[in-house]
Amino acid sequence: GVGEVALVGGGPGDAGLLTLRAAELLARADVVVLDRLAPRAALEHARDDVEVIDVGKTAGTHPVPQEDINALLVARALDGARVVRLKGGDPYVFGRGGEELDACAAAGVPVEVVPGVTSAIAVLAAAGIPVTHRGLSRGFTVLTGHDDLGTVPDAPDHTLVLLMGLGRLRTTAAELVARGRDPHTPAAVLEDGYGPRARTTLGTLATIGEIANAAGVRAPAITVVGDVVTRAPGWAGPA
Amino acid sequence: GVGEVALVGGGPGDAGLLTLRAAELLARADVVVLDRLAPRAALEHARDDVEVIDVGKTAGTHPVPQEDINALLVARALDGARVVRLKGGDPYVFGRGGEELDACAAAGVPVEVVPGVTSAIAVLAAAGIPVTHRGLSRGFTVLTGHDDLGTVPDAPDHTLVLLMGLGRLRTTAAELVARGRDPHTPAAVLEDGYGPRARTTLGTLATIGEIANAAGVRAPAITVVGDVVTRAPGWAGPA
Repeated sequence: GVGEVALVGGGPGDAGLLTLRAAELLARADVVVLDRLAPRAALEHARDDVEVIDVGKTAGTHPVPQEDINALLVARALDGARVVRLKGGDPYVFGRGGEELDACAAAGVPVEVVPGVTSAIAVLAAAGIPVTHRGLSRGFTVLTGHDDLGTVPDAPDHTLVLLMGLGRLRTTAAELVARGRDPHTPAAVLEDGYGPRARTTLGTLATIGEIANAAGVRAPAITVVGDVVTRAPGWAGPA
Repeated sequence: GVGEVALVGGGPGDAGLLTLRAAELLARADVVVLDRLAPRAALEHARDDVEVIDVGKTAGTHPVPQEDINALLVARALDGARVVRLKGGDPYVFGRGGEELDACAAAGVPVEVVPGVTSAIAVLAAAGIPVTHRGLSRGFTVLTGHDDLGTVPDAPDHTLVLLMGLGRLRTTAAELVARGRDPHTPAAVLEDGYGPRARTTLGTLATIGEIANAAGVRAPAITVVGDVVTRAPGWAGPA
């Protein structure tokens, strides 16, 4: 008979931040298809004989095209397998979960979507930065591209979370200032989430590009802009 | 000796969307302090003799003031108790977790913050609406108040998630249109998250106020605005 596909948010990388449902689905999975940012520690919940397929992009190699991932999920499920598609964070926060759902639905494969703890919020928390905080933030915007940069609320009490390349950090910060944001707005680069290289680099929109460059920050990293950054341990006023 | 306080995100209400760490902390808790939207099902992980204190606001009664909640957490922990402060969704997404953290830290009480699956993303997923989706959404903004309404990206492919009162729904929709958003922008009201009264009401910015009113929508509810709403089952073009 036909198997199933579960599109599972694996959370930000900490073993404890997996959901109970994710652990349950991993325990019965025949196949686990991993993203680059999917938490490897979650595999401890899987069977010893589980098949693990890593389709994550790694620097210097070509990522597996999305169409091929879709085809893989469908083929294994049609073969009768219980497939867990394990993603970092949440499957719908830039996780292309909707496309995989469509592919499965089109092929008649039963799909379950399991939301996860999103890195866009939890990685900030791990760095001591609340995404909202009374008096410091009354809302937040999460972006992965540059198209909407100029049109987000420019109040310093609106938190901006940028899930985009560090290579453009200096340009991005300059663009926000050019669009009217105060250059003294606090900013932080959070590397490696809950991983062993986790590190917080602090500055302002005027300085963060230079400071991050000098510190040698590396992907994966999340950039946060807004007054909530002042809650990070180590914040000592505009640098 | 001094106990501890854990500020725990309980997720959007589904028993399976609790994190492993939350379940672990609940299992050893002496006291659980519940928010109105905290998932009651999570208490199954707690000891039989756990003390449960409900400080949630219920319609028609006065909520427990935040200062009193802070004082309660501190007092119980100083008394030696292991306290879990269980919240709906994530403790930092309008959960006032930062204020409770400050109160504990000021009193010398050890605090742990445990991120949760935020309702702002997961309740959409439960209704078949991905918060981001290739071609339909390249980012999202989450607001609880009205101050920033006029300054969010007004592209229909930027998802707007509003965690605010249904009483102002018509005004809010009109305000977004007045600020330049297309009145045909898809909009949805999602009632009761993962609860038994879960229901999706669909419309556009021009019609959602009237449609929701006629449908008798009730709190708790989340409003979503943007092209991703067209992914909801039952969407049949602008109403």
